[in-house]
Amino acid sequence: MALLLKGAPVAAALTELAEQKTSLLKEQGIVPSLAILRVGERDDDLSYERGAMKRCGKAGVRTVQAVLPEDVSPEVFFRTLDDLNRDPDVHGILMFRPLPPQLDGEKARQMLEPAKDVDGCTDGSLAGVFTGTASGFPPCTARAAMELLKYYGIDPKGKRAAVIGRSLVIGRPVAMLLMHANATVTVCHTRTVDVPSVTRDADLVIAASGQMESIGASYFRPLSPGAGADGNGQVVIDVGIGWNEAKQKLCGDVRFEEAEPLVSAITPVPGGVGAVTSAVLALHTVEAALRRVK
Amino acid sequence: MALLLKGAPVAAALTELAEQKTSLLKEQGIVPSLAILRVGERDDDLSYERGAMKRCGKAGVRTVQAVLPEDVSPEVFFRTLDDLNRDPDVHGILMFRPLPPQLDGEKARQMLEPAKDVDGCTDGSLAGVFTGTASGFPPCTARAAMELLKYYGIDPKGKRAAVIGRSLVIGRPVAMLLMHANATVTVCHTRTVDVPSVTRDADLVIAASGQMESIGASYFRPLSPGAGADGNGQVVIDVGIGWNEAKQKLCGDVRFEEAEPLVSAITPVPGGVGAVTSAVLALHTVEAALRRVK
Repeated sequence: MALLLKGAPVAAALTELAEQKTSLLKEQGIVPSLAILRVGERDDDLSYERGAMKRCGKAGVRTVQAVLPEDVSPEVFFRTLDDLNRDPDVHGILMFRPLPPQLDGEKARQMLEPAKDVDGCTDGSLAGVFTGTASGFPPCTARAAMELLKYYGIDPKGKRAAVIGRSLVIGRPVAMLLMHANATVTVCHTRTVDVPSVTRDADLVIAASGQMESIGASYFRPLSPGAGADGNGQVVIDVGIGWNEAKQKLCGDVRFEEAEPLVSAITPVPGGVGAVTSAVLALHTVEAALRRVK
Repeated sequence: MALLLKGAPVAAALTELAEQKTSLLKEQGIVPSLAILRVGERDDDLSYERGAMKRCGKAGVRTVQAVLPEDVSPEVFFRTLDDLNRDPDVHGILMFRPLPPQLDGEKARQMLEPAKDVDGCTDGSLAGVFTGTASGFPPCTARAAMELLKYYGIDPKGKRAAVIGRSLVIGRPVAMLLMHANATVTVCHTRTVDVPSVTRDADLVIAASGQMESIGASYFRPLSPGAGADGNGQVVIDVGIGWNEAKQKLCGDVRFEEAEPLVSAITPVPGGVGAVTSAVLALHTVEAALRRVK
């Protein structure tokens, strides 16, 4: 039986930390505030937004929604973003992406005020992730994966890590964070020949292929006769989440029922990384507010 | 007998390309210019500087030396850097690092004008390397390694690559460039357990440990009975260079005489990556001048 790396207690611990810092800020009359900039009504965005608002509420972080119609003009969109950039009462901005085709996503990314970039999408934040300096913020999902490992006492130092996926939202940044934590990291992607041969050698597998239930038993080491009740020693962080129409439930990138009997520890989906991500978002907003005070 | 991946023809091809672009600029009355900012008289810096000036000369790139004494005050150093940043006749700045202790190296890195950062040390350039956008310039050595592979027709796509070293000057950026070229990359470093087990599995090995002659036969696949005269299929790019006092010659990070009989292709030291690096520097300076015109 693999250890289930549940997100709830990790999120609770991070929320408590955020709340403590919020109390300090409130003594100075500051309420840390997150602006959520959303275009249209995509289900994924709405679901993430609900979780984020709920979590921010628990952490004492104020949320402001800036919702624009799917067909918003570039003028209106960029004026809204500019207003949020300038608003002294806004400490963090969560901008849902991808944006619809009439809006230049790269321009929006570059325009976002770096100090308010609490989900790590600007060049400044990404340079910080790459160089290992604390400037900016890493993408929330990448930090959420690291916070899960930390909470459960899994130190990446000296371990082999395989990251499946090379996106800027999770694959590349989490690879860097793992490397800064002294793991030896291999990044697999769509052009990798024989991904399972890489992941079978890894102690940590970060599944972020973006392909629901694409990662099955062959990606993990078989259980050896000597393996204990706690599996083959591999730890799996499943970053994917999507609605499986056939199974009528939320699923990750890993075929949980195939992986779970083999590995030592694995995040459930739902209830794993996703739960932690919104807590990281709240914490980043509080940290952004604190940085402005200092 | 491994194929020797000599740098000279690669450097010549890049210099010819730079020269062609320089001619276009000269028609518009622009002479691409590189400022070399050096503090003190370190042997490594002087040697690199000589190579860079010679190569720039061949490419039609003007060089200007700004040389400051080892004990220069922060005021004078930063004023000099600021002058070079502002000088419209300077298109690229090569700032030798590390700087002596009285100068804040991180401040200098952040202060360098991104458009003139032809050796890829600012956050803007490094974010470009990480995101895979063409903003800024990668560190010259990292691009030199890629240009060597390209010149000799070695396509990283689908290959396993092992990078030994995680510095911001070579290890991390070359890992990103290889990943953008669709290699599956593992970065090894001082905390990696059993580096040879990683490099033996790799098709490409980038040696940038910074430890002279630290990489011997055990890091490469043994020659199998089926292997042809051209080795085990591994390609080695040796980025290191240092003076071996005992042998009284320049050596790389790889023990060449141990690796060469095993692998299919390997860069010599000297005469490999180093020769290409200064040609990349000249080319970057020309490209910086071109970007300003556009």
